[in-house]
Amino acid sequence: MSLRVTVWNEFRHEKNDPEVAAIYPDGIHAALASALRAHGIDEVRTATLDEPEHGLDVETLASTDVLIWWGHLHHEDVADEVVDRVQQRVLEGMGLVVLHSGHGSRVFRRLMGTTCNLIWREADDTEVLWNVAPGHPITEGIGQRFIIEREEMYGEHFEVPTPDELVFISWFSGGEVFRSGACYRRGAGKIFYFRPGHETYPTYHNPQVQRVIANGVRWAAPQVAWSSNFGNPAPVIAR
Amino acid sequence: MSLRVTVWNEFRHEKNDPEVAAIYPDGIHAALASALRAHGIDEVRTATLDEPEHGLDVETLASTDVLIWWGHLHHEDVADEVVDRVQQRVLEGMGLVVLHSGHGSRVFRRLMGTTCNLIWREADDTEVLWNVAPGHPITEGIGQRFIIEREEMYGEHFEVPTPDELVFISWFSGGEVFRSGACYRRGAGKIFYFRPGHETYPTYHNPQVQRVIANGVRWAAPQVAWSSNFGNPAPVIAR
Amino acid sequence: MSLRVTVWNEFRHEKNDPEVAAIYPDGIHAALASALRAHGIDEVRTATLDEPEHGLDVETLASTDVLIWWGHLHHEDVADEVVDRVQQRVLEGMGLVVLHSGHGSRVFRRLMGTTCNLIWREADDTEVLWNVAPGHPITEGIGQRFIIEREEMYGEHFEVPTPDELVFISWFSGGEVFRSGACYRRGAGKIFYFRPGHETYPTYHNPQVQRVIANGVRWAAPQVAWSSNFGNPAPVIAR
Amino acid sequence: MSLRVTVWNEFRHEKNDPEVAAIYPDGIHAALASALRAHGIDEVRTATLDEPEHGLDVETLASTDVLIWWGHLHHEDVADEVVDRVQQRVLEGMGLVVLHSGHGSRVFRRLMGTTCNLIWREADDTEVLWNVAPGHPITEGIGQRFIIEREEMYGEHFEVPTPDELVFISWFSGGEVFRSGACYRRGAGKIFYFRPGHETYPTYHNPQVQRVIANGVRWAAPQVAWSSNFGNPAPVIAR
Repeated sequence: MSLRVTVWNEFRHEKNDPEVAAIYPDGIHAALASALRAHGIDEVRTATLDEPEHGLDVETLASTDVLIWWGHLHHEDVADEVVDRVQQRVLEGMGLVVLHSGHGSRVFRRLMGTTCNLIWREADDTEVLWNVAPGHPITEGIGQRFIIEREEMYGEHFEVPTPDELVFISWFSGGEVFRSGACYRRGAGKIFYFRPGHETYPTYHNPQVQRVIANGVRWAAPQVAWSSNFGNPAPVIAR
Repeated sequence: MSLRVTVWNEFRHEKNDPEVAAIYPDGIHAALASALRAHGIDEVRTATLDEPEHGLDVETLASTDVLIWWGHLHHEDVADEVVDRVQQRVLEGMGLVVLHSGHGSRVFRRLMGTTCNLIWREADDTEVLWNVAPGHPITEGIGQRFIIEREEMYGEHFEVPTPDELVFISWFSGGEVFRSGACYRRGAGKIFYFRPGHETYPTYHNPQVQRVIANGVRWAAPQVAWSSNFGNPAPVIAR
Repeated sequence: MSLRVTVWNEFRHEKNDPEVAAIYPDGIHAALASALRAHGIDEVRTATLDEPEHGLDVETLASTDVLIWWGHLHHEDVADEVVDRVQQRVLEGMGLVVLHSGHGSRVFRRLMGTTCNLIWREADDTEVLWNVAPGHPITEGIGQRFIIEREEMYGEHFEVPTPDELVFISWFSGGEVFRSGACYRRGAGKIFYFRPGHETYPTYHNPQVQRVIANGVRWAAPQVAWSSNFGNPAPVIAR
Repeated sequence: MSLRVTVWNEFRHEKNDPEVAAIYPDGIHAALASALRAHGIDEVRTATLDEPEHGLDVETLASTDVLIWWGHLHHEDVADEVVDRVQQRVLEGMGLVVLHSGHGSRVFRRLMGTTCNLIWREADDTEVLWNVAPGHPITEGIGQRFIIEREEMYGEHFEVPTPDELVFISWFSGGEVFRSGACYRRGAGKIFYFRPGHETYPTYHNPQVQRVIANGVRWAAPQVAWSSNFGNPAPVIAR
């Protein structure tokens, strides 16, 4: 079965900030789509905030197996209707990979039920990501740990529900830690939150980051068709 | 420390349906408040849907340690502002006990991030509730199991996140099972969902049901003051 | 990658009890191996208690991706050395599927750290298994629930650690419930406990039971090579 | 109800190593007992490896609500019978607080089912412990984080089952992270693993470490009497 991915990006930093445009000239979404293709995931589309329905119309979501989400400063510009639609598709089985500042997106907050707040600092911290789930498919090819030389710091407390599976914990040179790779099941859908990716660093060109995202997409893909059967049934067993 | 409880009830069935009024002449909220007082929880107030701000103004919630929620047919009449306020107070540490058809309330769905749907049947099923968390404070005085002779059936799949702790599983005579006692932590707050309590049965007069609810209130009470400290701090460790 | 399975069976009932021999003339292990082959899992070997080293010598385990375990009355006859060896291989990444009365096996108790006790009754109960993990690969092809007409009853409390994922809950006609499909990660290995399979019933000839076991084997198979890297390393970051 | 605590210590370093004896002249157990008394926990006894039955005879354990465990180099000297007895008491409801190198103790490995291995380094690392469970009773009085100036490093991967609740994550100056405060339920008993406490540092004189241990003892104390009711019962519901 082919795996159909849609990469969603806010896509405003790249248009407004030359520093970001220099790193991601075609946008973060294009860089991520290219990385996924290099990992053998071929059916990759992109969608961005300023498209009609933010590029996430009913047909697009209905034909998406895994949605990737990157947003930062304009979370509140995402329409109610699109938030509802993404939530519903996740509960039906669509995978969702939420990156970095997407922690504050309406979509992620809706699915988590919490603020998803955290502490943060832009100060060229070094980040070490430790694998705490040996054998987990999201860590395939990663080994014990990997290092990102310079990144924004995200620190605890990260106000999310306890992850169903915790995959990475990050160390930052300023003294902080963070639950950087977190897996959730919601309805029939799987959600992977992965921390790295501040727009002023070339994080999505990092081969290990790309690999984790590709692994996360494969992990989140729906494996078993499921049609929820709610309602008011007759007894299973005659009384 | 005294424990301040507010019991919230939709309080429309009791006014519109003589069958329900006969069981709960002063409303489900009054029956629950009385049961809590009999269990030594003295500071109990009530609030209902048709009061201003549904009885849940800022001052009331700010002085509530644990909120109990019973609603059924009029979930959508609860105002956005009140849903936001309850969610925020839970994340700050207020306990929440959600009863029976409260599974579909806006407050519970907001905090869970899922539909919270289930299957159901009104057909005088017998329910057996099995304790699957020995030693847990919510099961104090309950032992291995207890029986409710006649109740509405709720069955799986119950579309909620995996509980942080599962306390009860119900058996129904029609052949169904249900995760009937489920504990969650969200932010600094604790949430207990407890299944029994259809309005046409005298379930909240059942001593074991009353005991579980009193235990649940005590379990959900905030134990440790917590003030979230989000933002943009200096490094903890000089680099 | 080919999936190498070893089916372990105590294999004494079938030699001593004509009722069991009539159902499983070549042993439960042979019936399970045949069912797996019918599900496209080709590399299936068997091993039994009365073979040297119970058929689980170092070479056999080293070339096993997933081990299935069925035992009942002779758990204490399994040698320390073999229990140690199975535990070590699971922690290194070998999958383990424990069936029915294998709940009391030394191998399962060793990996769980608890008694794994439960309540039980041989009285031709009807069992309904409810899927509580929609979309999970172990429930592929199963849907909402399935029924086993006659089985031994197992009931709560089941003294095991809280499962990392709960997949099935069983209903029994005598009024009991049981966490019937339970997933654990231990080290790099995955463990699936699945309840059905009393030796005096033809449960392992049931197509849905066979399908769940085949799904469980595929789920438990190691996906990512992992070599634990314990010890005393130099700092990752120069101080 | 008075809370009866037994502090168990290997108590050999203090007799053999002047550096350790200078820090803990009466042994680590005496320092811990004194700290608990200062926190209002009065009924504190101690027991050590070289006493008969390691000081953990049947009567002592039967009258212990919470057992604290510190061991390091002589784990294998602890007798089978005592390991069995401690495990049984935990499953019946006794609390267990395992400190630092107790991660490798037979008691902890028995209850976890894994190696409980980790990486480590004795190099005067600074440790920052972050609270990742706001509002949890074990973090009462601690706030967002605290610092231990010099400690042994423990790092991931820590080969334990996923904690039922994760309370602290540690940061080390050499670049490592560690799940430093981990809660488990096993049977009716509660287990708290807390990382700090290498014998050559004055860690157990640190007021914040003392407070976490006192909090952990209170959290682990049995709250609800439980008598497991295993066996072969008649049906609950007549068929």
